[in-house]
Amino acid sequence: MEVMQVLHMNGGMGETSYANNSLLQRKAILMTKPIIEAAATALFSTADTAFHASLAIADLGCSSGPNALFAMSEIITVMINLCKATNHELPEFQVFLNDLPGNDFNTIFAGLLPRFQEKLSEQMKGKYGASATFSCFFNGVPSSFYGRLFARESMHLIHSSYSLHWLSQVPIGIEGNKGNIYIARSSPPGVIRAYYEQFQRDFSMFLECRGQELVMGGRMVLTIPGRRSDDPSSKECCSIWELLAIALNEMVSKGLIEEEKLDSFNIPNYTPSPKEVRLEVQKQGSFSIDYLEVSEVNLSIFDSDFNPNVASEDEGYNLAKCVRAVAEPMLVDHFGEEIIDEVFKRFGAQPAAHMLKENPALVNVVISLKKIA
Amino acid sequence: MEVMQVLHMNGGMGETSYANNSLLQRKAILMTKPIIEAAATALFSTADTAFHASLAIADLGCSSGPNALFAMSEIITVMINLCKATNHELPEFQVFLNDLPGNDFNTIFAGLLPRFQEKLSEQMKGKYGASATFSCFFNGVPSSFYGRLFARESMHLIHSSYSLHWLSQVPIGIEGNKGNIYIARSSPPGVIRAYYEQFQRDFSMFLECRGQELVMGGRMVLTIPGRRSDDPSSKECCSIWELLAIALNEMVSKGLIEEEKLDSFNIPNYTPSPKEVRLEVQKQGSFSIDYLEVSEVNLSIFDSDFNPNVASEDEGYNLAKCVRAVAEPMLVDHFGEEIIDEVFKRFGAQPAAHMLKENPALVNVVISLKKIA
Repeated sequence: MEVMQVLHMNGGMGETSYANNSLLQRKAILMTKPIIEAAATALFSTADTAFHASLAIADLGCSSGPNALFAMSEIITVMINLCKATNHELPEFQVFLNDLPGNDFNTIFAGLLPRFQEKLSEQMKGKYGASATFSCFFNGVPSSFYGRLFARESMHLIHSSYSLHWLSQVPIGIEGNKGNIYIARSSPPGVIRAYYEQFQRDFSMFLECRGQELVMGGRMVLTIPGRRSDDPSSKECCSIWELLAIALNEMVSKGLIEEEKLDSFNIPNYTPSPKEVRLEVQKQGSFSIDYLEVSEVNLSIFDSDFNPNVASEDEGYNLAKCVRAVAEPMLVDHFGEEIIDEVFKRFGAQPAAHMLKENPALVNVVISLKKIA
Repeated sequence: MEVMQVLHMNGGMGETSYANNSLLQRKAILMTKPIIEAAATALFSTADTAFHASLAIADLGCSSGPNALFAMSEIITVMINLCKATNHELPEFQVFLNDLPGNDFNTIFAGLLPRFQEKLSEQMKGKYGASATFSCFFNGVPSSFYGRLFARESMHLIHSSYSLHWLSQVPIGIEGNKGNIYIARSSPPGVIRAYYEQFQRDFSMFLECRGQELVMGGRMVLTIPGRRSDDPSSKECCSIWELLAIALNEMVSKGLIEEEKLDSFNIPNYTPSPKEVRLEVQKQGSFSIDYLEVSEVNLSIFDSDFNPNVASEDEGYNLAKCVRAVAEPMLVDHFGEEIIDEVFKRFGAQPAAHMLKENPALVNVVISLKKIA
């Protein structure tokens, strides 16, 4: 879990780079909103009376940025609207915000929650009148979602966005991936297999745990950065890491990084295809699939006046900032603080805008699941 | 809640003063251990089968110091021993750590939990063999315990130590308490009444909320700094604050603090008698009383070789450090940073050792409750 721990330590990220990331995440959640709505509506219409008293919802990998409460807010709003429309009494909400123990929960609790609760209360008063009461209990859950987080059959609706592409660890047996830092076109088949098998183990464990925790009929909506192609080395998911690898290899050739150090650096990340996601769900057996699609987030959101015909330095720089936000903690952990600026100077000088032109969208696999066994 | 928020912001406390406080708390929890054990054993022997699958326990006002997990650790150990002795399957534990949103949950999650989980796992292996599995899910609950924290009838055992003497706010209508900062021998009866009524409202609300959250037969063990005497201005609970008031009044007379500023400063604290605690429990009606006693923690623990016949400066200094840990955040909030060192220079010079001689123990009211309605 150590690598994931580093990955989620957002405290060290610059504000600008973080805002970029959060824009991407927010857009992805907004695109998933109809799926979340459908899942919440289906859950609402089930006959389980226990749910009407108390509704337990969770966001896994919530991070601590401005989006940490965004998905939960959407789900609560949907539920409030459904209750209002059907003249149902509002349930008490239990909200569970999960991330690794190194996540900045203090910022969520003291920085984000007060304003969030205020907004919820205003929303309630707008719908139900000034005297309306509304119970919503918040919990932080500091643990890896590749293990159990909650009591058996205690959860109703689980959401996770932009988190499940992080593996629990760097796959074992990828020593042959020299010069690369992730699956690349030049990776030997054994490396691709090792990455895929790690994904299978991790995602299957995730499904197993959530299957134990959800009530029968409970729902789960997951947004996973993925790919359309059946080929795990497809450029739609790997080219950003290949560009970063180019920068690091240049620094090896200049003697700024030791070759062995680069050879032992690999990103614990896997961007699955819809087919691979479906296969694990079917093999594991706790869930039926209500919905499975790929959606695309246009990377031009990083630059509101992005023009694919003008490969300006700025676009490359913005993309670099976004990659830096994600990669910096891992790079610092492996190579040390001192190489970072040089890495991203080189990475920013890469023809990133060219890549955006070739592949201007980020592919997400969106899946909505129902607990059936 | 603003005042309590300040009170629990332990981040700014010096390490030494904090350790003093934690020693006091740890001693109090150790003294309460037999009561916790009895409550856990009684809970264990109830016929409620739901409990055998999952056991939800909470510590309210856990803070973030070295004792944040101490009470939960004791309860889990008792439960593991009971299961072992009766050949019962171990339940899954859900542990809820509550404090105000400003509490340093990051320190608990990233600093204390890993070692705690390791120790639990060692303990389990010692008792059940190397292959034993043990599920314990941790949650942080950032909210005031004078409101609802958990879903209805979801909790089995609730503990709180050294937290319930903090009121939800400074009582209204205590303008007549000039020159004092808490109930003092010179306080008018209206001030004492206002403090007591605030305690009644707060403690009654606390019981009401916990009554809704505990399952029928669920247990609650509370340790509240209190007093033996029926007189709320008894020196056993008030003399420390009177000493602090002397230091502040001196500074008023030197022109270092404005008189109005001191007049509007009051500690939101109430140290009830066992009779007052019993009365609220009986009035509120959700609980029967299994146990209600006063216990004493000897203040000489602040100085391992404390000798009441030698009123050395050191003893006064140690007591000052302890009071400083508790009072500093409130004083800074009200008077500003700049007066603090002077306050405690003067307070440290007070005849604190004399007070220790006169009143060498801190009185705790310990109560064990069973949810009956």
